[in-house]
Amino acid sequence: MGMGQLGGSVALAGRAAGLFVWVAGFGRRADSLLQARELGLCDVTTISAVDAVVDADTVVLATPLRAVPAIVDAIAPVLRPGTLVIDVGSVKGTAVRDIEARLPRTVDFVPCHPLAGTEHFGPSAARADLFAGRVCLVCPTPRTSPTAVDRARELWRALGADVITMQADLHDRVMAAVSHLPHVAAYALAGALGGLPPHVDRAARDLPTTSLRDTSRVAASSPAMWRDIFLENRAALLPLIEILASRLDQIRQAIAADDGARVEALLEAGRESRARLLPK
Amino acid sequence: MGMGQLGGSVALAGRAAGLFVWVAGFGRRADSLLQARELGLCDVTTISAVDAVVDADTVVLATPLRAVPAIVDAIAPVLRPGTLVIDVGSVKGTAVRDIEARLPRTVDFVPCHPLAGTEHFGPSAARADLFAGRVCLVCPTPRTSPTAVDRARELWRALGADVITMQADLHDRVMAAVSHLPHVAAYALAGALGGLPPHVDRAARDLPTTSLRDTSRVAASSPAMWRDIFLENRAALLPLIEILASRLDQIRQAIAADDGARVEALLEAGRESRARLLPK
Repeated sequence: MGMGQLGGSVALAGRAAGLFVWVAGFGRRADSLLQARELGLCDVTTISAVDAVVDADTVVLATPLRAVPAIVDAIAPVLRPGTLVIDVGSVKGTAVRDIEARLPRTVDFVPCHPLAGTEHFGPSAARADLFAGRVCLVCPTPRTSPTAVDRARELWRALGADVITMQADLHDRVMAAVSHLPHVAAYALAGALGGLPPHVDRAARDLPTTSLRDTSRVAASSPAMWRDIFLENRAALLPLIEILASRLDQIRQAIAADDGARVEALLEAGRESRARLLPK
Repeated sequence: MGMGQLGGSVALAGRAAGLFVWVAGFGRRADSLLQARELGLCDVTTISAVDAVVDADTVVLATPLRAVPAIVDAIAPVLRPGTLVIDVGSVKGTAVRDIEARLPRTVDFVPCHPLAGTEHFGPSAARADLFAGRVCLVCPTPRTSPTAVDRARELWRALGADVITMQADLHDRVMAAVSHLPHVAAYALAGALGGLPPHVDRAARDLPTTSLRDTSRVAASSPAMWRDIFLENRAALLPLIEILASRLDQIRQAIAADDGARVEALLEAGRESRARLLPK
């Protein structure tokens, strides 16, 4: 399994629950793999995906989305019948094309998305309790057997997460709205502040700024991971970015026109929308 | 003084510190004033700004920015010589025009901006410890006497805050970047999610979504207060909104073009910008 925050946490939590007796960590970077071993995330590491999955009962695909197809092509021939294969990707419409279609029908593949990642990443961000009390979305395909879903559900429950099943298409549209668009907004905001005049930049760095800190928190996330999420979910995401751009322009125009009533109406609409989407 | 989150907190913290023996709460809405009395923020309430400041040693202007000039015009004739007048507004370039120019030279006016507000507002959001360990920016004008600055500094220290002095123009440019633009982004993001298809909206409401929650947190703030901040600081804010819109469009275009290297570079730039502005 991958040894980033999610893969490493599955390893830690699964060992703590007694699910895994031997964990092979896969990755491409020697320093990350060394760190994973030092942190005790796995028993052995390898830069060969094939070596990592030979004899495995459970395979966890936990790499940036666009690295997945080549890995699946490599491991498909050596997977034992009955192996449980899950992924943890933030986009699920790609799971059939990139994973299921490349796997033998003799393995149990279940598309999964644990809602547990944070803006931290890499082996050092792995936590044994990362999934405790969280939700894992499971998106069965037409080929997914009920038995496979049950196996995945038991795995996630053992790791501490509740499972909610959802159709892949709905998953990707919902995630585009409540996760991917906020990440776009945060990265855009943080990037927009990259060219402040030196004296403004210096003064800004000296001040405690909770609004910027929270609004841009997820812009500290892994660029490689989010690059792939944005690209793989662009059918759902691009229309929302356009709506965001339009809303931003409406606010800009109302401010430029000194139109207080219009500004207030736009802010009130945002406030109400947030209160509806995020109750309590 | 006003009885919202900031004015009410000055009242609570000031009484706890033994600074105020009698607090008159001013406001326009009877329900807010009743709430302020019930919460013990003040001894008496009035809808007359004049009644609120007669015989006052300290006057705290804590209303939305555009309500300030009329209030200052009303109270200026009755302020006793030597009264300390502070405001707590998030824009300071307006302090000279809207406040200082309307006040007699016999009072000590000091433009202040405590960096302590949250997204909660109204009397119920007041806290005696709101300023503890926080920073208050003080922006002396050419007319502000050193004695007046010292009086304001002592007041804020007694309330628990450290004082940093800053020129009003720099204050407004820095705040446009680290506070006002994040608020615009958060309101725009929340507003953009106001028109989701019903089945997507419903599924979104059922999921825990930390990225949307944090990215849009400040969109729960008072629309009336932020309307005035955006309008009064639009000279500094509008160019930044344009830069944000441009950055958002660059990300959109890179995603639409499936240009992974460009997407990653834009995200990495955002990540680096955030890390520079928000150390640790």
